[in-house]
Amino acid sequence: MATSSSILLLAALLALVSWQAIASDPVRVNGFVCKNPMEVNADDFFKAANLDKPRVTNKVGSNVTLINVMQIAGLNTLGISIARIDYAPLGQNPPHTHPRATEILTVLEGTLYVGFVTSNQPAPNRNKFFSKVLNKGDVFVFPVGLIHFQFNPNPHQPAVAIAALSSQNPGAITIANAVFGSDPPISDDVLAKAFQVEKNTIDYLQAQFWENNHN
Amino acid sequence: MATSSSILLLAALLALVSWQAIASDPVRVNGFVCKNPMEVNADDFFKAANLDKPRVTNKVGSNVTLINVMQIAGLNTLGISIARIDYAPLGQNPPHTHPRATEILTVLEGTLYVGFVTSNQPAPNRNKFFSKVLNKGDVFVFPVGLIHFQFNPNPHQPAVAIAALSSQNPGAITIANAVFGSDPPISDDVLAKAFQVEKNTIDYLQAQFWENNHN
Amino acid sequence: MATSSSILLLAALLALVSWQAIASDPVRVNGFVCKNPMEVNADDFFKAANLDKPRVTNKVGSNVTLINVMQIAGLNTLGISIARIDYAPLGQNPPHTHPRATEILTVLEGTLYVGFVTSNQPAPNRNKFFSKVLNKGDVFVFPVGLIHFQFNPNPHQPAVAIAALSSQNPGAITIANAVFGSDPPISDDVLAKAFQVEKNTIDYLQAQFWENNHN
Amino acid sequence: MATSSSILLLAALLALVSWQAIASDPVRVNGFVCKNPMEVNADDFFKAANLDKPRVTNKVGSNVTLINVMQIAGLNTLGISIARIDYAPLGQNPPHTHPRATEILTVLEGTLYVGFVTSNQPAPNRNKFFSKVLNKGDVFVFPVGLIHFQFNPNPHQPAVAIAALSSQNPGAITIANAVFGSDPPISDDVLAKAFQVEKNTIDYLQAQFWENNHN
Amino acid sequence: MATSSSILLLAALLALVSWQAIASDPVRVNGFVCKNPMEVNADDFFKAANLDKPRVTNKVGSNVTLINVMQIAGLNTLGISIARIDYAPLGQNPPHTHPRATEILTVLEGTLYVGFVTSNQPAPNRNKFFSKVLNKGDVFVFPVGLIHFQFNPNPHQPAVAIAALSSQNPGAITIANAVFGSDPPISDDVLAKAFQVEKNTIDYLQAQFWENNHN
Amino acid sequence: MATSSSILLLAALLALVSWQAIASDPVRVNGFVCKNPMEVNADDFFKAANLDKPRVTNKVGSNVTLINVMQIAGLNTLGISIARIDYAPLGQNPPHTHPRATEILTVLEGTLYVGFVTSNQPAPNRNKFFSKVLNKGDVFVFPVGLIHFQFNPNPHQPAVAIAALSSQNPGAITIANAVFGSDPPISDDVLAKAFQVEKNTIDYLQAQFWENNHN
Repeated sequence: MATSSSILLLAALLALVSWQAIASDPVRVNGFVCKNPMEVNADDFFKAANLDKPRVTNKVGSNVTLINVMQIAGLNTLGISIARIDYAPLGQNPPHTHPRATEILTVLEGTLYVGFVTSNQPAPNRNKFFSKVLNKGDVFVFPVGLIHFQFNPNPHQPAVAIAALSSQNPGAITIANAVFGSDPPISDDVLAKAFQVEKNTIDYLQAQFWENNHN
Repeated sequence: MATSSSILLLAALLALVSWQAIASDPVRVNGFVCKNPMEVNADDFFKAANLDKPRVTNKVGSNVTLINVMQIAGLNTLGISIARIDYAPLGQNPPHTHPRATEILTVLEGTLYVGFVTSNQPAPNRNKFFSKVLNKGDVFVFPVGLIHFQFNPNPHQPAVAIAALSSQNPGAITIANAVFGSDPPISDDVLAKAFQVEKNTIDYLQAQFWENNHN
Repeated sequence: MATSSSILLLAALLALVSWQAIASDPVRVNGFVCKNPMEVNADDFFKAANLDKPRVTNKVGSNVTLINVMQIAGLNTLGISIARIDYAPLGQNPPHTHPRATEILTVLEGTLYVGFVTSNQPAPNRNKFFSKVLNKGDVFVFPVGLIHFQFNPNPHQPAVAIAALSSQNPGAITIANAVFGSDPPISDDVLAKAFQVEKNTIDYLQAQFWENNHN
Repeated sequence: MATSSSILLLAALLALVSWQAIASDPVRVNGFVCKNPMEVNADDFFKAANLDKPRVTNKVGSNVTLINVMQIAGLNTLGISIARIDYAPLGQNPPHTHPRATEILTVLEGTLYVGFVTSNQPAPNRNKFFSKVLNKGDVFVFPVGLIHFQFNPNPHQPAVAIAALSSQNPGAITIANAVFGSDPPISDDVLAKAFQVEKNTIDYLQAQFWENNHN
Repeated sequence: MATSSSILLLAALLALVSWQAIASDPVRVNGFVCKNPMEVNADDFFKAANLDKPRVTNKVGSNVTLINVMQIAGLNTLGISIARIDYAPLGQNPPHTHPRATEILTVLEGTLYVGFVTSNQPAPNRNKFFSKVLNKGDVFVFPVGLIHFQFNPNPHQPAVAIAALSSQNPGAITIANAVFGSDPPISDDVLAKAFQVEKNTIDYLQAQFWENNHN
Repeated sequence: MATSSSILLLAALLALVSWQAIASDPVRVNGFVCKNPMEVNADDFFKAANLDKPRVTNKVGSNVTLINVMQIAGLNTLGISIARIDYAPLGQNPPHTHPRATEILTVLEGTLYVGFVTSNQPAPNRNKFFSKVLNKGDVFVFPVGLIHFQFNPNPHQPAVAIAALSSQNPGAITIANAVFGSDPPISDDVLAKAFQVEKNTIDYLQAQFWENNHN
């Protein structure tokens, strides 16, 4: 015997999301469990995220701790998320894009060399690369969809940044991983021509272990 | 003799911005100077904002340093901004709304008691107040347009937060200031009835000095 | 035994709403019952709202009869709603905001003194208060998210207005109610400092009966 | 000698509009004069529109008095407008669409027979016609882009309605006028086949005087 | 006994769509079956649409083969669709509007006489008719919501076009069909006055067989 | 002596664009010349684009002829553009993204092997690669911001496709060009680590000639 109730996250009032609870199965929005609006409370807008704590960095020397709608259900439809990024000495958050968000970043600790590349320009112009060295307290903007990175040039000290993104689910595409580490791999014929290298260079690249920095 | 050239901030490609350069007058978008796109560079996406530095707090014990489109022209149309908020011991960022943005906040230093009030509910329900004590590294969300505040309950230690807002020009309306400190003042007849107090209470309130916490 | 069918309100074609009918439980969008599109008819876009009839006003002397998506399911996703507002002699629709809508209003009967307060301005400027006396047939606009009110200055005659809002679910936040009448109450320490009054003034305010004018 | 100043209507803060004043020429947004934001005042959100006054109706027996961004500059970017519609006995606001707005309407005086036609349906279904007789105080919704009309079935009494539209510049396309009264005319070959009539019927139609009900 | 799983189309990450699978009933978004995101694959973004193949044209000499979200589930929320249009010699895609999309069209074969009519203009101006003869390889734009048509002026050769629309569900309203062929019919009193013809002309028109060109 | 007039492209009625003509300098929106609305005509929505004609392909064997707002001023704000893509035998439109548009594509001639890579997935999952072989008349969708490509696997025959994009100014970022061919180059230290290769491999790559396929 099925029972049903219609529920709506408070935050969802801003958008157009509806759903059904069936039997004892949880109701979900964008894949996340929703609650009866009568039961929504402050915890639905809260995350004990430990953004003050250093993280172990990955093989390229960074770690992105993103607090998006997967961590805070109340963010759904509200168009924003926040992240802490740790950089090991000489570590980098490698070239990537956010398909659905602009990013604004401020440096909490250390120094960062950051940059982004513009869209293709009319020939004979090439994509422009804009870069900057950021010190503590500086702010930089990475426009939506453009390839960008951050690099900690200090060989001895880590760096830390707080970044905010203009979507509750910005997505991230690490370029090297998406191009050379996809499952299944992209045809090496295609990539060899696109990157103007021998196929065995592509094969070598595709044989590496591609660890996603963040998602 | 007027000369003219049409220029476009790189970021403005995302929207619908128009302009004119005239003689030696600078061109502006939303009131801010624009540059010839051939002359756009990394500095247009950068601000040496000193967000790592403590600020002197105002009479209610807080200080909001907002980096929006007025500080970084390249933010125009990109839908995000970032702020550092300083709280003196027992200081507060008093009840306010952002008419055009949701806010996400993380605590860098100290402790914050934060909360927001929901929209009016069907009678006999009253506006719900959601609150939470945040420690370092915690994250909290204030949905667009809702009245919210942060308060530092510690009588001895300051607190610091980083907040991001989902607009390059979110606006802020400090409730007490807007209601009791506007120029010219709102009729005390209207406010006395709305707030269920004597007119002389309103007059007293309107006679205070209302310093805007942030804009 | 559960049966299921997928249904779609005609109006919802404009957006991204989906749901499930289960057993005999009604299907809902934003909490409201939906119908099989084959069964959608003119009644889904209609409300016998009696907007021509005077209403009994509340303790501040007004009554807002809002026809939004809760009254007309077909409004879902269409971004508009309409209201009749009754004002007793000397009655007011007290200072409030709509977090998700601009309002446009025309006076049907009587006279209204109306106004709104702008966002915080750069110091030393204060929030500007824009006001106007409206006569029958006049039109006034209250921009999204700004604090505004209407007051009937006539001690003998009621007033009536028709207002439209740019959302099917605009929300309303009556400032005094949200600040002093929330459930649970906001800390009186916080409010005393924010409003520059003694705590017992806040306690007095919080002890009043806060009747929501409209939602 | 050119002087220049950058100005921004308060309401335009919500969007992305900028411009330049040059010499003594007025600055315009969407073709309408803008003001220095320091000079914006309540009048920029106001129109003495006389919406309480009956209008002389046109040859099909109606008159639409639309208050949009052309009448109230402060409406720019705010996404709403309002109209009074007068109907002579047996008068109609003939079949038309708004390419950029949904409409919500309430009857102030008299009776209206109203309706709209849905988009094309999968064959063999035809476009559905939804209609309703509205009495004073009733509310009806016409979804964006759909063909709709209002007709006053009373041979002796006029009718009056207030309508609101979800755009500050909704546009209107009176079907008969646009199809048969355009300048220059559409090819009668095309129209004869589309409407399944003889070309001379089209020619007859195109020879009529097509007075636009509203714009 | 009901089982449930929450699923999300990859494409839906861009928006806010959620749903529930119940028992063996398929889950739907906007009425179309969704899949577990773990099971999403290239086929969800693919349609063997045979857009290279000529179509049998209808009684006005055209055939629109639209590939929208009904044919490619992965299009949901992505805001685009594509169509092949076949024109018999002297055939036409009769005057129609898309309530939710702008159209851009290029001619693959033959010649097309195309046009659209603007919104109502301030009196005494009439709706402007913009037309053009398109040859193979030419491109033309029909702005959202405006009445437009294409006509093949060649009495011997067919024509073919590819059109794209700025919505995954643009809708189409064939003017003659919606006005004269709706179910049930619009009152002939209303239409006679609107079109300035005798009621029996309307009755004649309404008695025709109105085949929808496309939906 | 400066003269000025305010002008508005018909299409711009849909958005919020304004500007000023000064002296004899043309007025521009997004960098393109605008016209007095009284002078707007069918040519502002038209381009003799020769999309039926084969193009000479570039060094990776493709050529994208995009008709966007730079070719058709009337497209401004309307959110769509169209392209013809030529593929030499074994040619490719190399991996790229559109930061502001989804793409839908249909094959006119030949065969295409197409694919896109999803956003980063939660570890240990890798970015998924979705691919498909398209024959004449098939349709495929590339969601906004995702890396995608098309490849003509036929060693003897060219291929041709028509693609539409959900923006009047979609932008394009060819991955290899943006990463290895930017001006100035990205630090080879950063790229060597990101791509897990020796610096001299990066140096070799950066020394190639990077011809932009399209912009």
